[in-house]
Amino acid sequence: MATIADIAAKLGISKSTVSKALNNATDISASMRQRVLETAAQMGYMGRRLARTEKKLCILIANMDYETPNQFGHDIVLGFRQMAEAEGWTVDVVPMDKEFQKLTPYGVFMLDHGYQAAYILGFSLLDPWMVDFKTSQIPTVLYDNYIRSNPYIASVGCDSQEGFDLAVKHLVSLGHKKIGLISGPLDSYILRARYNAYLRAMEKYGLEIGENYIGMGYYVAESTRTYIPKLLEQGITAILFSHDIRAISAMTECSDRGIQIPRDLSLIGFDDLPMTAYTEPPLTTIRQDRIALGGCGYYAISCLLSGLPIGSILLRAPLIVRGSTGPAPVA
Amino acid sequence: MATIADIAAKLGISKSTVSKALNNATDISASMRQRVLETAAQMGYMGRRLARTEKKLCILIANMDYETPNQFGHDIVLGFRQMAEAEGWTVDVVPMDKEFQKLTPYGVFMLDHGYQAAYILGFSLLDPWMVDFKTSQIPTVLYDNYIRSNPYIASVGCDSQEGFDLAVKHLVSLGHKKIGLISGPLDSYILRARYNAYLRAMEKYGLEIGENYIGMGYYVAESTRTYIPKLLEQGITAILFSHDIRAISAMTECSDRGIQIPRDLSLIGFDDLPMTAYTEPPLTTIRQDRIALGGCGYYAISCLLSGLPIGSILLRAPLIVRGSTGPAPVA
Repeated sequence: MATIADIAAKLGISKSTVSKALNNATDISASMRQRVLETAAQMGYMGRRLARTEKKLCILIANMDYETPNQFGHDIVLGFRQMAEAEGWTVDVVPMDKEFQKLTPYGVFMLDHGYQAAYILGFSLLDPWMVDFKTSQIPTVLYDNYIRSNPYIASVGCDSQEGFDLAVKHLVSLGHKKIGLISGPLDSYILRARYNAYLRAMEKYGLEIGENYIGMGYYVAESTRTYIPKLLEQGITAILFSHDIRAISAMTECSDRGIQIPRDLSLIGFDDLPMTAYTEPPLTTIRQDRIALGGCGYYAISCLLSGLPIGSILLRAPLIVRGSTGPAPVA
Repeated sequence: MATIADIAAKLGISKSTVSKALNNATDISASMRQRVLETAAQMGYMGRRLARTEKKLCILIANMDYETPNQFGHDIVLGFRQMAEAEGWTVDVVPMDKEFQKLTPYGVFMLDHGYQAAYILGFSLLDPWMVDFKTSQIPTVLYDNYIRSNPYIASVGCDSQEGFDLAVKHLVSLGHKKIGLISGPLDSYILRARYNAYLRAMEKYGLEIGENYIGMGYYVAESTRTYIPKLLEQGITAILFSHDIRAISAMTECSDRGIQIPRDLSLIGFDDLPMTAYTEPPLTTIRQDRIALGGCGYYAISCLLSGLPIGSILLRAPLIVRGSTGPAPVA
């Protein structure tokens, strides 16, 4: 690990200047401070300044609402805080947009704020810091994203394969054979994982996937409107969804078309959002235990801070059977 | 969770008799005690007796040596102890054979000894308790084994896919195209995982797998003697092994046949056993960080004891490049 002397040598300045910059002293220019922070981050400097400061972690969050209890991120943040604060950490929750990431390297941001580690929620493959994570030496845990081979970065999520295996097994037990998938586009790590989980679960239960069994689109309502009739034309009797929100949109679409759930069509969501217990009918779905996703995020950070090079932690993904699945209609 | 009253009602005996049996009182017959323990275990009873006793965990170990530092299990046990004992747990290491498992249900054993949770090392798919784990409600972590959907059971291991991806990538960069696999038989969870990891890594790098690229056998020296010449006949220039021990056996076999490593053939092991740094040439291999496997076993138990339903933790599997891999020989 780089020392203050290494940074000073690299920049051709004195150790005391480096030290002042790292400690946010006032008698140093903003541009010099920025140069020192960038160089320190590049060289993997972490030690002295962090050791002196208070124990601070951050949750960096993008593309995900978390402020009220019915929003997806709320319980993840809560579960993380419960674990981390009980062990004496301060936790900051920081919304993070792409523009900021473009201007400031990840390492500089973390060093500047004295964060020892971060939990990253909601980042897409297009977020600029996804590139920084490939080489970063700061303990960092990503929810539903994965970075190959870097021992400082770990991944936490629910086991999509287990969830889809249980969902397909449940449908097969109800007599379904033609099972479709409606998903968001494959521009995120987790949507690719769920897509592959669908393919493998179908294969596992010996079910064929017809040419038009899969619908993908960015806009929820629009893609539901497009794909529900197309899948029904194929004789499909059950549909898996990449997210609850798409399954709920499908309920509305089916209601408009006079298709009865589950008499004519069975639907299974993914997430177990609070509202899914109160839809008409209540939605059968694969649970993401969000309090546990928060707690595991903290556990994963603890592992990395203890020098355990974990790559991933997968939570169980149980199937919550409610009213939106029933026996396959007689052909 | 079952209470003492539930157990008493089920057996038609008094609560005080149940309590005596659970607390190992002397004024109760051995056969009654056994009946109570078995019923309590079946009903998922865990609470009262465990809460009163000291904090006790066990490592149950089969088919794995661990007593001296050069044996595979040694550092796993050490890494587990370091983490667990620092947090006030007593850890017992208990060798466990199939005969004992046949006679005593897992739940009875754990209740009888007052263990709150267990880390399971070296079990094969044929160990009788693998069936008990499917329904057990005792927090239990399995190294290199996996139980579907039971939220009380988690799995810890190294990421075979990451390891084999790195190994094949390394060989491709050296010009190899025909890469074989020598493995133990697919009667264990982890050997199946490594076999599948080989198939996927080859597919990922666009390499074909010829009809006789894979050799499998129980006995190490015998299967090496059989498969090394067979693979060489196919024009193979590099071999991946399911374990270091098979790669080291292959070195001897090659030396006997005048085949030079890595000039004529490149070899990559799996495990990074201490001795692999000292073979002639030193072995390129995929590391299993055994101290970390122990530490993660304890972390996984902590998660389960905190009610976090984790399914698996995978550690990084870095490639350690040494002298047994080199440029592909010119055809």
